[in-house]
Amino acid sequence: MNAPTALAPVSLEKAYLLLNHGPVTLVSSAAGGRRNVMAAAWTMPLDFSPPKVAVVIDRNTLTRELIEASGEFVLNIPARAMAAQVLAVGSESGRDGDKFARHGLTCLSQPETAAPLIGGCVGWLACRVIPEAHNQQSYDLFLAEVVAAWADPEMFSDGRWHFPDASRRTLHYRAGGHFFVTGEALAA
Amino acid sequence: MNAPTALAPVSLEKAYLLLNHGPVTLVSSAAGGRRNVMAAAWTMPLDFSPPKVAVVIDRNTLTRELIEASGEFVLNIPARAMAAQVLAVGSESGRDGDKFARHGLTCLSQPETAAPLIGGCVGWLACRVIPEAHNQQSYDLFLAEVVAAWADPEMFSDGRWHFPDASRRTLHYRAGGHFFVTGEALAA
Repeated sequence: MNAPTALAPVSLEKAYLLLNHGPVTLVSSAAGGRRNVMAAAWTMPLDFSPPKVAVVIDRNTLTRELIEASGEFVLNIPARAMAAQVLAVGSESGRDGDKFARHGLTCLSQPETAAPLIGGCVGWLACRVIPEAHNQQSYDLFLAEVVAAWADPEMFSDGRWHFPDASRRTLHYRAGGHFFVTGEALAA
Repeated sequence: MNAPTALAPVSLEKAYLLLNHGPVTLVSSAAGGRRNVMAAAWTMPLDFSPPKVAVVIDRNTLTRELIEASGEFVLNIPARAMAAQVLAVGSESGRDGDKFARHGLTCLSQPETAAPLIGGCVGWLACRVIPEAHNQQSYDLFLAEVVAAWADPEMFSDGRWHFPDASRRTLHYRAGGHFFVTGEALAA
């Protein structure tokens, strides 16, 4: 079980800082009474104001179906303690059963989005798809506007990550179940 | 001065692994006898085969002008020892003078691209722009195919980063001159 989740709003102009260092994300979505979560390493900020993001969502996934139906998703930023869950939800299809129950993932809801926020994560970006059919069809590439963001205030505040606790550092995905943990801070 | 640069080819099917963990990059370009280098944190893999990438290139930069003229660029992956250079070339415009000379950056050339490879980096992806005028004009978003890749073989081989040397670990950009160093490896 994950620890109870703390969550505080992040201002829109600082939301890109949740993603700027390139962490792996969990993409959560819901539509028509169904919900899903998958892992995505291929995501990046796209603009500051209004904040936008880009993310690759494979056309064969249930997540793709739910995002195309609802026009929205949440990018959740998982912590180190969730590495096994990130790998599991990135390896299985939501069409084979509910991944939340199977992997002990909890959901939080916020009024800004119909997509669930994943408990135990340290940052969340609620995103609304910018309809760009050519990108979606040709490249599996989704562009979206960030409409709300939150973070665990112990981990991220005033636009900065703190990471007081090694188990809640963010993760960077390599391949084959291998990650890097976000390492030490460095000022140039 | 940076140490002499070691460079070995990376197969195209493994090229995305150079970027998968979300490191900051240097974008190098050349056209019409001019060359430039800038920092870019907003880049991600876009496809496996053929490998593609996405990167945000602001419309006001000299890099944008050179990439639009040449249709190509190199994504260079800098090492920790280059953090001050990454910050400098990300803060200055190439229109105000040659950034290579000013910051002691060396260039390597390879037959696959007219853009220079930056010495002292640990990975390089030679990229050819996929013409998508709407993305470029509306979002400053460039999609490109990776046509060749290389890495320092001590740092990356058989599709895996090794990082035997702390000074040559990759970097993740935060903001305001602050980075995270790529941290410890973790298998889920």
